[in-house]
Amino acid sequence: MNNTIFDFIGGNTGDWKVIKMTTLKGDSLPKVTHIDKLSSSLINRFEGIWSLKGVVSNLRYTEKSDKDKLVAIQEDLGRSKATYAALIPIRKNEVWWNLAQDDRRKIMENQSRHTHIGMEYLPAIARKLFHSRDIEEPFDFLTWFEFSPEDEPAFNELLSKLRQTEEWKFVDREIDIRLKRV
Amino acid sequence: MNNTIFDFIGGNTGDWKVIKMTTLKGDSLPKVTHIDKLSSSLINRFEGIWSLKGVVSNLRYTEKSDKDKLVAIQEDLGRSKATYAALIPIRKNEVWWNLAQDDRRKIMENQSRHTHIGMEYLPAIARKLFHSRDIEEPFDFLTWFEFSPEDEPAFNELLSKLRQTEEWKFVDREIDIRLKRV
Repeated sequence: MNNTIFDFIGGNTGDWKVIKMTTLKGDSLPKVTHIDKLSSSLINRFEGIWSLKGVVSNLRYTEKSDKDKLVAIQEDLGRSKATYAALIPIRKNEVWWNLAQDDRRKIMENQSRHTHIGMEYLPAIARKLFHSRDIEEPFDFLTWFEFSPEDEPAFNELLSKLRQTEEWKFVDREIDIRLKRV
Repeated sequence: MNNTIFDFIGGNTGDWKVIKMTTLKGDSLPKVTHIDKLSSSLINRFEGIWSLKGVVSNLRYTEKSDKDKLVAIQEDLGRSKATYAALIPIRKNEVWWNLAQDDRRKIMENQSRHTHIGMEYLPAIARKLFHSRDIEEPFDFLTWFEFSPEDEPAFNELLSKLRQTEEWKFVDREIDIRLKRV
């Protein structure tokens, strides 16, 4: 069985040094200097100052034509040149979660073009989504990005575009944690 | 925060007595006489003979018009007259999980009419889906049904219809455990 469960542990040590931590919406998280991203189990780890857990899942909105494009051009995490990263935990409000699948998809794709915006920045920005909502965690998603220092302006542009979308009106907690590989 | 994580513990004691356990596809589970369904945490419980964990999630395929119908007619678990139950753990194969969202939805709804078949048996058959795939469990779903003894023939008919669908060709493990409230 593949590892699907990961812990993001904020504390005083770890593989990723925190450069900047910005709370965009909702409650912040306690300040930490480092983050470790560890393959985990469902057992809670009492390490660090805080710990966020997420699970890898199947793509829940992406349709066949986009999925094929994504698979063809996206790159994996862990590229040696990708020394910068960002951990952005996100929560969406109850209005979002009470929508039906087709309504959520309409907002994500027809109105917000979520997949297409992300695709413009491939393969430079590698990305992985961890789901947290269904495992009683404080956030719904932990989004993780890796890129090289020269692609940081492009990454900021990507975020700026996403945050202006219709979809982002449903986000009620968001913290942007910028990291550099130790 | 609502409880979303549940354990189904098979053993020698519990709120539900096992009437019959049938392995329809793939490996069976060890025989047990009782099952307990408990609100849980992500910590593993080392009780019983086996233990299956699942999480409640949002509806991932149901569109607005069907969702509204479901909400209007379905009934909750725990009705006093619903003294019969079934726990049916299911796993689907990798072909299914490699499909994109729109392909899965087409098979579920256009070809298999999953939601509509289930709806024919509402409110008699109450139903809850627990997701297990993303938390490193042996099954993808734990499906749970509650009904009164006189609705057992209708329940068998519902299962028979679902098992003949296109969707069911992707099921590679299925165990049907029939239960009676103690």
